[in-house]
Amino acid sequence: MLVYRSSISLSTAGETDIIDITGRVEKLVADSGVSRGMVNVFITGSTAGLTTIEYESGLVHDLKEAMERIAPRKGNYAHDTRWGDGNGYAHIRSSLMGPSLSVPLDGGRMMLGTWQQIVLVDFDNRRRDRTLAVTVLGE
Amino acid sequence: MLVYRSSISLSTAGETDIIDITGRVEKLVADSGVSRGMVNVFITGSTAGLTTIEYESGLVHDLKEAMERIAPRKGNYAHDTRWGDGNGYAHIRSSLMGPSLSVPLDGGRMMLGTWQQIVLVDFDNRRRDRTLAVTVLGE
Amino acid sequence: MLVYRSSISLSTAGETDIIDITGRVEKLVADSGVSRGMVNVFITGSTAGLTTIEYESGLVHDLKEAMERIAPRKGNYAHDTRWGDGNGYAHIRSSLMGPSLSVPLDGGRMMLGTWQQIVLVDFDNRRRDRTLAVTVLGE
Repeated sequence: MLVYRSSISLSTAGETDIIDITGRVEKLVADSGVSRGMVNVFITGSTAGLTTIEYESGLVHDLKEAMERIAPRKGNYAHDTRWGDGNGYAHIRSSLMGPSLSVPLDGGRMMLGTWQQIVLVDFDNRRRDRTLAVTVLGE
Repeated sequence: MLVYRSSISLSTAGETDIIDITGRVEKLVADSGVSRGMVNVFITGSTAGLTTIEYESGLVHDLKEAMERIAPRKGNYAHDTRWGDGNGYAHIRSSLMGPSLSVPLDGGRMMLGTWQQIVLVDFDNRRRDRTLAVTVLGE
Repeated sequence: MLVYRSSISLSTAGETDIIDITGRVEKLVADSGVSRGMVNVFITGSTAGLTTIEYESGLVHDLKEAMERIAPRKGNYAHDTRWGDGNGYAHIRSSLMGPSLSVPLDGGRMMLGTWQQIVLVDFDNRRRDRTLAVTVLGE
């Protein structure tokens, strides 16, 4: 039984930037030497989230629109009134999407569908440098 | 420390079909021989999701209504304009709900509440044959 | 490789009470003796959820407002018509947020951001005594 810990660093444009990180996670899974088990990806920070999507420009647009309906950028947020950050919507979107995603591994590969990619969604209202924690458990 | 990998195959009716899979996951947990640890259930594909709910017909109806409010079937989706699939809403619902669920195990049992069942929600706009990956880690 | 299982008991006020449990999870992670791996927190029950947030009073207010927009307290729920519980909204909010959260560990610490706390959100329409299952896997 192995535990492998690593990380992914990347820069985002913010404003619900949706970035396909599947290839980078795959590479770390290969590096881990784990064949069967699970990989967890976690975004440190409170204004971004992780999920899966068919990564094509139509759905990237549609997911941004959906998040705008759920927590509008121009809504009234007590966070902004109190702190003046202007990113209350980003925090709320992040809490709703969640920061953590676990994917099973078999034969050294993530069991994703062909049209199912892992994405980091950066909701913050400015460019950010982000670090994702990648943890592999298995044998 | 054990790693057990298995899968569940089932057919769904699509259109936000909500299926209680608790019994099938329980059976695989028993097969795994793991007493203490965690089971992860993962839906391969980008138009379905996993969560827990009190599985009774009222809430099954209410969850469908909630998803219709969040990502309406007849909304405008760039995915549909581009690809003509007509299931843009299903992709967005799936990304919002998420494809992965982890449940702790103790004494060989999932630590679910009495009125807390694991459900697969198939958002796609047609019948589907689905495969769920079930992964048990523990001792 | 270790498996550590424990639990957290706490009382909530209900009505989307948002409680910072980071310190209590940290203590159990320290007790586990696990340095590298993962901790999973799981809420047993179908009217509460888990996520991360910057725990400050502005965002605590904003998250409550967001959940009220997504699944209004005074909405029409078949669950309430059928069972008279009056907490249909709480069940739906719980299914949308999800009951499970996994956080990576390194150097015996959770890899959370400085402004990223783990919260239990109790959506039920009354005070509740809650038990959270905490499971640590790693070495």
